[in-house]
Amino acid sequence: MASGEAAKKSVEWRVSVTEGSSVKLEPESNLFSRAWKGLKLKVSEFAKKVWRIGADDPRRAMHGIKVGLALSLVSLFYYTRPLYDGVGGTAMWAIMTVVVIFDYSVGGSLYKGFNRIVATSTGGALALGIHFFADKLGGTFEPLVLGTSLFLLASAATFSRFLPIVKARFDYGITIFILTFSLVSVSGYRVDKIVTVAEERVSTIGIGVSICFLVSIFICPVWAGGDLHLLITKNMEKLAHSLEGCVGDYFDANESNSASHQKWQGYKCVLNSKASEDSLANLATWEPAHGNFGFRHPWKQYLKVGAAMRYCAYCIEALNGCINSDVQAPKHIKKHLSEVFMKVSSEASKVLKESTSSVSVMTKSPCIDLLIGEMNIAVEELHSAMRTLPDAIATSSSPTVSFVETLPLITIASLLIEISTRVEAIVDSVEELANLAGFKPAAISNEKQEDAMKGVVQLV
Amino acid sequence: MASGEAAKKSVEWRVSVTEGSSVKLEPESNLFSRAWKGLKLKVSEFAKKVWRIGADDPRRAMHGIKVGLALSLVSLFYYTRPLYDGVGGTAMWAIMTVVVIFDYSVGGSLYKGFNRIVATSTGGALALGIHFFADKLGGTFEPLVLGTSLFLLASAATFSRFLPIVKARFDYGITIFILTFSLVSVSGYRVDKIVTVAEERVSTIGIGVSICFLVSIFICPVWAGGDLHLLITKNMEKLAHSLEGCVGDYFDANESNSASHQKWQGYKCVLNSKASEDSLANLATWEPAHGNFGFRHPWKQYLKVGAAMRYCAYCIEALNGCINSDVQAPKHIKKHLSEVFMKVSSEASKVLKESTSSVSVMTKSPCIDLLIGEMNIAVEELHSAMRTLPDAIATSSSPTVSFVETLPLITIASLLIEISTRVEAIVDSVEELANLAGFKPAAISNEKQEDAMKGVVQLV
Repeated sequence: MASGEAAKKSVEWRVSVTEGSSVKLEPESNLFSRAWKGLKLKVSEFAKKVWRIGADDPRRAMHGIKVGLALSLVSLFYYTRPLYDGVGGTAMWAIMTVVVIFDYSVGGSLYKGFNRIVATSTGGALALGIHFFADKLGGTFEPLVLGTSLFLLASAATFSRFLPIVKARFDYGITIFILTFSLVSVSGYRVDKIVTVAEERVSTIGIGVSICFLVSIFICPVWAGGDLHLLITKNMEKLAHSLEGCVGDYFDANESNSASHQKWQGYKCVLNSKASEDSLANLATWEPAHGNFGFRHPWKQYLKVGAAMRYCAYCIEALNGCINSDVQAPKHIKKHLSEVFMKVSSEASKVLKESTSSVSVMTKSPCIDLLIGEMNIAVEELHSAMRTLPDAIATSSSPTVSFVETLPLITIASLLIEISTRVEAIVDSVEELANLAGFKPAAISNEKQEDAMKGVVQLV
Repeated sequence: MASGEAAKKSVEWRVSVTEGSSVKLEPESNLFSRAWKGLKLKVSEFAKKVWRIGADDPRRAMHGIKVGLALSLVSLFYYTRPLYDGVGGTAMWAIMTVVVIFDYSVGGSLYKGFNRIVATSTGGALALGIHFFADKLGGTFEPLVLGTSLFLLASAATFSRFLPIVKARFDYGITIFILTFSLVSVSGYRVDKIVTVAEERVSTIGIGVSICFLVSIFICPVWAGGDLHLLITKNMEKLAHSLEGCVGDYFDANESNSASHQKWQGYKCVLNSKASEDSLANLATWEPAHGNFGFRHPWKQYLKVGAAMRYCAYCIEALNGCINSDVQAPKHIKKHLSEVFMKVSSEASKVLKESTSSVSVMTKSPCIDLLIGEMNIAVEELHSAMRTLPDAIATSSSPTVSFVETLPLITIASLLIEISTRVEAIVDSVEELANLAGFKPAAISNEKQEDAMKGVVQLV
């Protein structure tokens, strides 16, 4: 029976194919069209994804174009005859240089470029010296000396990568050093030939590096320093939003939970941004003065600001855990405290926002001390609200409220107090940054500032 | 006067030099000896640092030796005549391959090696195809087609790096693809010559890659997977120690603070290990089965365990902040709660330690459910201790204890409860790992396990 049905079906299929009837109705065409549709869907999804990557940050697409441009420029050395004669077969090294050292950020290109030049020169010179020495010894000693020196130097240079400073600043250089040393050392050329080869190679690498630097710096440059600056300010803003948002949501009467809940997860970016910060700060030190960032801009201080922000984000994380825990405080007690809680979080958030804008426009904030004072007043109010909490519970209309039910609120209060301390630490690190980087003083009159200061003194 | 004194001094110096008197007493010799001593000190410090890097993990020194060995093996192709004739001048590519792809871990070497082979083949083949096509067109079209294709492909390939999957798995391959494509495309050779060059190059790269793989896998291999496994277990152990230690210290009567305080900072390693975990997990997927880790070992699950641990570490961080805050609870209240606090932290710590040893020996734990049950009992006890806290305060001998003074203790309690939840999440992720990786079942009799299960049922 079953096989009969299958046969019938297969006949139907065959008929449909030979007759070439409507594609949508027949099983086999269905299979094809479904596969085709699936493929189309996947391709369009992929295309959308790719488009989004470019649209999110058009500098990425620009980076691709820049690499193409740099390579095209270098390949001109092959197509243009006079230049071709100049650099000869070693023009390969110029292409290789462009492909390998062109980095997304200017700092990255400079880091790799300088490393490549220095490492090629030192590796080549050292190999040449040893070659010369081995040549003098002559005979059976020559391969022995060359082989031993290659083994020892490669081992030592590889091991040196484990030194943190070498890893951070010369990792790429070490690779090139070993490469150049090995190539020269085992090339088997006579010394005078090597010198010619080395000269050619250094000049072609120089051409490659120069083209990279020029394209990297003068065509839509991506500065690692600028990116670090932006990352820190964006993260600080996210921290401010998260802090205000998650406490606000907790006390929001409407409790439109999970949807808005997602909005306040910005602090998670802060938790996970250490690696990017480290790498950007490292590359930024290679960059020349640009935009508002002078030579020797204190990039390392940004890492300290980032660490202070992460320190604060840990607490917000714990706060978030508390807020989303199963044990919820009774509504009227929540209401009793909502105002002061919201005040602390919004004042702390204001401090962070002011700090953000101070870093963003690279100007010392005129009112940060005032805002910190207000945050501390709010914290004091929170303290006294906590002091009167037992009375509030006792006099509450529903006598069923137990002490345990207030525990989440007490924890949130403690965490808010701790967060306010950590926000102050962020402000301190930003102030140090302002001093080190020479942020412009705030554009308000001295009188006004003095008034503000007086206010703070009274407040504190 | 001053200049007279200076002159006198300089005379003294000159005298001292000409007389060659005691080195220690004279200013100029002093200067020299101090500089010499300073140099000696710096060199010895540096040497100690280098020694420590090697002594901390002897595999690092071994890695250096392995690179030296691989390079020496490859350079044999130059010194040994028959082989030399075989691979000719392109042996340079074998050396370059070894220098560039030899990575600290087996996974790293395999990742780069496969990327290099695949990218060289595809890049070369594609360039060859376009070259052939341009050749057919001939005349002025040839450089135009070649130049345009180079520009477009280099741009597109560079842009593709921003796709997360490409970045994670084929970043190195993209570099090599562009490099090979450019070199072949602009080489200016005729097609038949290119085929010969390509054959030679692929064979030399194959030799380089093979030597790398052999040395990397068979001489003291460093497995990224094994390192990831170790990192996760070490971090879990640190978490257990930190949790137990910092609560223990808080209630310790002796309060020998700052010194022992440093001991319990292990959780900070957990906070900062995301980048290492990601990179190790990525490399581990390239590795073949080794040791206890089979083919398709669930390395991604380790990342989930790591994330769960970090989630717990955030809370421990907040707890640590609370413990070290200025506001301290009165001693007798602390004493009232110390036992139950210590019990929760030690039970949670026991759970973590059991989980650690389960991962470490890759065996399902026979008693983890029992331990979780005990942790939950301790948490329940903590709950009831908190419930009776107001009475404890009321009946305390000193009536001056205010509600506010107990706030830190309440916060610590809440955080401990939250931590216990997060510890359970760690255990869940470890259990998933155990299922995915097929951990061996625990080596206790079924009866015993049933007993344990019964106990848990009763406890919960």
